[in-house]
Amino acid sequence: MRISILGLGLMGRALARTLVKAGHSVTVWNRTEGKADGLGATSVATAAEAVEASPLVIVCVLDYAAVREVLCSVQLADRVLLNLTNGRPAEARELTEWVAARGGDYLDGGIMAVPQMIGTPGALILYSGSQPAFERYEEALGALARPRYLGADAGLAPLYDLAMLTGMYGQIAGFLEAAALIASEKGSVTEFTTELLVPWLNAMAAAQPRWAVDIEAGDYATDVSNLEVNRVGMVNLVRAFEDQGVKPDLLLPMQDVLDRRVAAGHGAQGLSSLIEELR
Amino acid sequence: MRISILGLGLMGRALARTLVKAGHSVTVWNRTEGKADGLGATSVATAAEAVEASPLVIVCVLDYAAVREVLCSVQLADRVLLNLTNGRPAEARELTEWVAARGGDYLDGGIMAVPQMIGTPGALILYSGSQPAFERYEEALGALARPRYLGADAGLAPLYDLAMLTGMYGQIAGFLEAAALIASEKGSVTEFTTELLVPWLNAMAAAQPRWAVDIEAGDYATDVSNLEVNRVGMVNLVRAFEDQGVKPDLLLPMQDVLDRRVAAGHGAQGLSSLIEELR
Repeated sequence: MRISILGLGLMGRALARTLVKAGHSVTVWNRTEGKADGLGATSVATAAEAVEASPLVIVCVLDYAAVREVLCSVQLADRVLLNLTNGRPAEARELTEWVAARGGDYLDGGIMAVPQMIGTPGALILYSGSQPAFERYEEALGALARPRYLGADAGLAPLYDLAMLTGMYGQIAGFLEAAALIASEKGSVTEFTTELLVPWLNAMAAAQPRWAVDIEAGDYATDVSNLEVNRVGMVNLVRAFEDQGVKPDLLLPMQDVLDRRVAAGHGAQGLSSLIEELR
Repeated sequence: MRISILGLGLMGRALARTLVKAGHSVTVWNRTEGKADGLGATSVATAAEAVEASPLVIVCVLDYAAVREVLCSVQLADRVLLNLTNGRPAEARELTEWVAARGGDYLDGGIMAVPQMIGTPGALILYSGSQPAFERYEEALGALARPRYLGADAGLAPLYDLAMLTGMYGQIAGFLEAAALIASEKGSVTEFTTELLVPWLNAMAAAQPRWAVDIEAGDYATDVSNLEVNRVGMVNLVRAFEDQGVKPDLLLPMQDVLDRRVAAGHGAQGLSSLIEELR
């Protein structure tokens, strides 16, 4: 299958290399020269030539403004544009119209992997936008990562992508604060993380699907620790950070939200009810 | 084995029930009456009687001030006091002295489980303080939860307990923000959480031991996304929250810390280096 790739950063190069390896005929273009060396792909001098070469055009550049810049003078008739650039749902919806006005079908994708993981079983790519386009290329794209189609609204892939990153940043924030607490007493951060924290986080994550059900039902009753218990525990926790000379900065908004929710009279509810303070 | 329990809240009752089931002779006391019904334990009228009854005395009350209040006029000669009350490292160290002055051996414990989990394979209790006391009762205490001894400094169990809670609060914060983002487009929060978020968080947590090694080595080089890349991504993420009408409150300090670290000239380092901004 003929596939073109616009943009040969670390991710673009990983995509090209993996598609070549899977037996596809890959044409590549990059704004600056010399990035195509050793990929086994056909390098062309302009974005227009790359679009001309293949019915499926993958673009992976810095941001959505760069996508428009790269494609501004190119016709997209009979082309599927798969945009794997990081962006927001609103930008994906705008780009759908912009591509349609140039005669193309639009598919948005969110890559849930670092470049090193492309083509390995752990990689996931979220897709949204044109369903016929997704179905036509699903098998070929499967060489890059496990594909998951979310719906015809092109904004869904960036929305779910950003939501997964959000979950990751929260987990990282908790890890960093926990590690700083352990390091404050010269404890072994590695032993703590490997033997205690990671199994604990995995066990706690396993409870999240039940919380999700509660959130969708708006039912925040709990038979474990309620918000009032957590509010008291959080005071203790923040004071321990002060004792240890560690900044609890990444935790403080959680304390604010707990305080607000309890002050609003919901102290007997579970932690899942804190979502009401975010919307 | 004779074991006494002071404090019959939800957790104290779970501890008593489990030790009775394991065949121990359990004596219990609570500040208010009627909490011992149905536990199969011997209920006594004063804390002093409960301490008199057993060489191992477990206390599980509201806070460390309540521990001192309960035991203020009680001698602890030839007794091991195991304190499973939530507190801070500094409080555990002070209580060690206080108990020693009354002739007792002190053991601190951090219960990493909700009451319903006591006596099940998933439960963990962290111990620190008197090693001889821990070794004497390790087997009996194993009926409650998997025991892990951290060292002679009684402050270690509360320190590690609080660090694990810290990690959990971060993960919860990320989950709540992610769920609010998905719900803003009427997406299925349950499907998102079960099929996408939890496997993703588990995969990300698996990277934390490597970060811990980096932190201990002070080596923050990265071959994946560096702080500058994350800083740009975070701007995009916060803007998407605004687009969707969801408050990014729980994420904002992560953005502050990223900005500070990049502004300090460390944009090429990995996310693990953010710990330097917390101490």
